[in-house]
Amino acid sequence: MHTSELQRLLDQSPVHRALRIQAEHAPAAQVRLSCQPGPEHAAEDGASFLHGGVIATLLDAAATFALIQASETDWATVDLRVDYLRPTPFAALLISGSAVHVGSRLGRATAELSDPGSGILATAAGTFTRLQPLPERP
Amino acid sequence: MHTSELQRLLDQSPVHRALRIQAEHAPAAQVRLSCQPGPEHAAEDGASFLHGGVIATLLDAAATFALIQASETDWATVDLRVDYLRPTPFAALLISGSAVHVGSRLGRATAELSDPGSGILATAAGTFTRLQPLPERP
Amino acid sequence: MHTSELQRLLDQSPVHRALRIQAEHAPAAQVRLSCQPGPEHAAEDGASFLHGGVIATLLDAAATFALIQASETDWATVDLRVDYLRPTPFAALLISGSAVHVGSRLGRATAELSDPGSGILATAAGTFTRLQPLPERP
Amino acid sequence: MHTSELQRLLDQSPVHRALRIQAEHAPAAQVRLSCQPGPEHAAEDGASFLHGGVIATLLDAAATFALIQASETDWATVDLRVDYLRPTPFAALLISGSAVHVGSRLGRATAELSDPGSGILATAAGTFTRLQPLPERP
Repeated sequence: MHTSELQRLLDQSPVHRALRIQAEHAPAAQVRLSCQPGPEHAAEDGASFLHGGVIATLLDAAATFALIQASETDWATVDLRVDYLRPTPFAALLISGSAVHVGSRLGRATAELSDPGSGILATAAGTFTRLQPLPERP
Repeated sequence: MHTSELQRLLDQSPVHRALRIQAEHAPAAQVRLSCQPGPEHAAEDGASFLHGGVIATLLDAAATFALIQASETDWATVDLRVDYLRPTPFAALLISGSAVHVGSRLGRATAELSDPGSGILATAAGTFTRLQPLPERP
Repeated sequence: MHTSELQRLLDQSPVHRALRIQAEHAPAAQVRLSCQPGPEHAAEDGASFLHGGVIATLLDAAATFALIQASETDWATVDLRVDYLRPTPFAALLISGSAVHVGSRLGRATAELSDPGSGILATAAGTFTRLQPLPERP
Repeated sequence: MHTSELQRLLDQSPVHRALRIQAEHAPAAQVRLSCQPGPEHAAEDGASFLHGGVIATLLDAAATFALIQASETDWATVDLRVDYLRPTPFAALLISGSAVHVGSRLGRATAELSDPGSGILATAAGTFTRLQPLPERP
């Protein structure tokens, strides 16, 4: 799947648009997204780091899109574990997703959030269920 | 802690304000929040259910505030598991949080998202680390 | 399902027999097991508490059997989160399992390990996939 | 840490000895264990695959020992997520553990169970708490 097609699918969600998530790269069974969060995503007013729910959103998106990329079908999150390693600053963030297992019904994927200056900030691992095939592009 | 104090702490986060999270009730070691999500929280434009990241945000807030309520100190999420049981509609949502274990350094809490019509929609279980005591109220 | 039938199913596994797991009680959508661990289940030789893998085994069994009890079909564990709250002593342990959601393909269940003297020692939450219906009893 | 020292620490647990866990290799912040399970570890009598609790035990051991290897101190499991991808056969199993984050109090590690014929069978991700430094070797 081309980066432009991933971007089109990502942009179908207002939550992704609010986070300005960009599809950066799309090797087989992986995706690489970037994001530039704003003050509306802070843990608290004036805090220098993001709300954990925003981080979960980014990791969930990357893991789901890795499975989409690996299978050309859509997936819904069944469950997700998020590990918060360090506070996530308001930097240009990278979020990579990897499909670990693509089954006929269930998929597994992991994701990793990092910024170039700090290394890995948060990780996730989840189980997903396969939805209907993606619609044909118009 | 009074509901009004919980609300004041919740409102320190722009993420909570955007979700219009209200503190409803605060028995010992528990909190009960409500939320009225809007179209900006949809999984996709036009979808009738919420983005999974929004659900994770609500459950994380409820679990964290249950520990705050149980301990009168603040906590940061170490890791969180979210289980998505059913699609979450744009209803008046209830999110209850329960402190399971309040240790000197680590806490454990669970949370449950429901709407009166559908029953339980999502659950979470997490580990949290104790931060400094809450600041005195002015 | 009668306690005797649960016990028969539990005893099909040599791992359960080695842990001397007993079915104690079986209300709808729940099970209550007991277990008397021995020195072969210690974290280390001479330690006064159990190996974490043994605790995961007990919680997995209780959660799985809660779904079996709720559905009269068998289930396989898709993923499981285990929270270790306190070291688990060599006591007469109780392990309760609860079915949270029984879907046509996926189930969710939680479990809790306790001993009467110490309260809750460990908890678990997992996703399970439905297998074929249980065979008829002879 | 030398493989022989890892083996000595592993062998302090009767649970590890019963599973015949061998330390194979120990690069920095990683371990590689092997295991030859027996019929006493079957999911059921006559089954061709292992009990999930045994798999959790192996993954927990590998993740914990990756942190031990990375830090030269001991760690206790705070919580662990296990993902079961495929039934695990009675083969010569490999279990690799990787330290993801080694903090002053909390550590994070992942583990992966595989056999040469089937690829990845199960994975795990967990949070761990640092215990006292390892005792000096005699």
